[in-house]
Amino acid sequence: MNIPPTQSPKNYAIIGTGAIGGYYGARLQEFGHSVHFLLHSDYEHVRQHGLMVESIQGDLALPKINAYNDPRQMPPADVVIIALKSTQNHLLSKLLLTPSQDETVVLILQNGLDVEQSLPPFINPEQIIGGLCFICSNKDGPGHIRHLDYGQITLGAYGADKQPHGITPIMQALARDFEQSNIPVQLTEDLYMARWRKLVWNVPFNGLSVVLDTATDQLLANQETRALVTTLMTEVVITANAWAEKLSPGQGRGIPTAFIKQMLEATEQMKPYRTSMKIDYDRGRPLEIEAILGNSVRAAQEVDVTTPYMTMLYQQLNFLEQQRQTEYQYSRQ
Amino acid sequence: MNIPPTQSPKNYAIIGTGAIGGYYGARLQEFGHSVHFLLHSDYEHVRQHGLMVESIQGDLALPKINAYNDPRQMPPADVVIIALKSTQNHLLSKLLLTPSQDETVVLILQNGLDVEQSLPPFINPEQIIGGLCFICSNKDGPGHIRHLDYGQITLGAYGADKQPHGITPIMQALARDFEQSNIPVQLTEDLYMARWRKLVWNVPFNGLSVVLDTATDQLLANQETRALVTTLMTEVVITANAWAEKLSPGQGRGIPTAFIKQMLEATEQMKPYRTSMKIDYDRGRPLEIEAILGNSVRAAQEVDVTTPYMTMLYQQLNFLEQQRQTEYQYSRQ
Repeated sequence: MNIPPTQSPKNYAIIGTGAIGGYYGARLQEFGHSVHFLLHSDYEHVRQHGLMVESIQGDLALPKINAYNDPRQMPPADVVIIALKSTQNHLLSKLLLTPSQDETVVLILQNGLDVEQSLPPFINPEQIIGGLCFICSNKDGPGHIRHLDYGQITLGAYGADKQPHGITPIMQALARDFEQSNIPVQLTEDLYMARWRKLVWNVPFNGLSVVLDTATDQLLANQETRALVTTLMTEVVITANAWAEKLSPGQGRGIPTAFIKQMLEATEQMKPYRTSMKIDYDRGRPLEIEAILGNSVRAAQEVDVTTPYMTMLYQQLNFLEQQRQTEYQYSRQ
Repeated sequence: MNIPPTQSPKNYAIIGTGAIGGYYGARLQEFGHSVHFLLHSDYEHVRQHGLMVESIQGDLALPKINAYNDPRQMPPADVVIIALKSTQNHLLSKLLLTPSQDETVVLILQNGLDVEQSLPPFINPEQIIGGLCFICSNKDGPGHIRHLDYGQITLGAYGADKQPHGITPIMQALARDFEQSNIPVQLTEDLYMARWRKLVWNVPFNGLSVVLDTATDQLLANQETRALVTTLMTEVVITANAWAEKLSPGQGRGIPTAFIKQMLEATEQMKPYRTSMKIDYDRGRPLEIEAILGNSVRAAQEVDVTTPYMTMLYQQLNFLEQQRQTEYQYSRQ
């Protein structure tokens, strides 16, 4: 694309160049932004061969990209996009070494609750944007990304107070960059509740798909698990609404019950979907159990909501994850 | 063994000659009783070659047994032992064709709740004995049984009123036969509550071993599933005690909470154990979901006890069972 940008190109830093960071970073670079990709295991391959994105919205070959394996070598960025799995958030204070500039925007593209709290304290909270990706994208090999479906990002301004922070100029500027780069964007005034809405889907489908070794369509076609999905969604909604009422009494900030039915019906309209947690499990990668299940269960406890179904799912996932780690250790001996 | 019996040998009919019926029937025949075995798929093999029992209490080769594949050919029995899986109880009215004699004792060797209600109405309820087997025994091939550990049967008199019916002469006579035949026996005055005590173990370990693809030792070694096992046990105890209180107010018929800790510790002392439901699942056989989970969940609903963990486990097992049936149908097309 050779359309000149309507605002001046920016410096983007992509922390974690996988299915998410690689895809969105490639779109931004395609448009004309200066994008700097931090890599780990794929560094050598990508430095030599660049990124290849096969996408339902048009393939994208970027034979030359700015690749780094050391965050200290990266130039100061206007926008830092955190696209690691939340299981790697303990590394963030080592990876975000760029000198703290008050105007640097940090966009954290992760599902789950309270992931922004993993960002190091030297980042200005007012510059933090949360992004919820609705995308089906996988990494097929080093520097090879396959974008299968969807692609929209929901952006919202973060606040440690969990209050709605409206549509900020930072969000609007980001949205312009993204939409010019062929990335559909939705803006939310209330990131905290948007995270809960996303959890209404992620808690049952991510969790059950791993425990029961299945996909979204099977979970909904079976009457037993359809009921179980509905119960889990209800627990998430009740917890979210207890928080909404605690934070903003009488403001009607909660999730309406009808949202559950909408989610069930929307999922039935989707193609059979292997969830991200199931893909991670099948590939032997760490599961985002804490961001999705653990933080939700603990949030429920804080507002005295009983969530036996979520709790049992959390315990089952932890068991499977820990068993696999044990087996992995044995297999290496 | 050539010790003469201290009471006259009896006619035993074994309905279902698998890991349980084959083992106990062989012990009774070894002692000198006249035992008649009803078989289905193994009939031809066993008619020609008899039964082979490899047992930690001494191997047992019975090259000649009375084998039947049609219940109408079997002689009247003093004792009929139902040793089918409870998943086949819908067949019982066709299999128990022996003319109803008021003195025929029917011993049903099945775990779970309310399995006696599957017996056809022409059987005299006062002659029904429930038996809970604590045994590790598998069928390795046609007519080949491997008895790996334990072997005790708990016997109790059945009553549709769920009340304790004491130690009856029928139970005592059965116990004599069994003990002479090298089968350890325990007698209970309260079959209904004995079934609940057994469920305290069976609900968590049978259910979770299938859903999480694991064995008893792993479920207890992991802190998450150990807590989950304890919660499930607690739900069973609360349900059992609600029934005990409803049936016999103020009689202290319930299960003490300390029983949970005893069960956990006793299980830790056992060898790593693949549960019977897990063995059935691995071999593609029907799971005793209704007798163990379904009837327990429904019993809880009847006394207004909320059992979310049991319910979720029940839903998960039903999903796995139904998925497998679907796959099986596909594989036959």
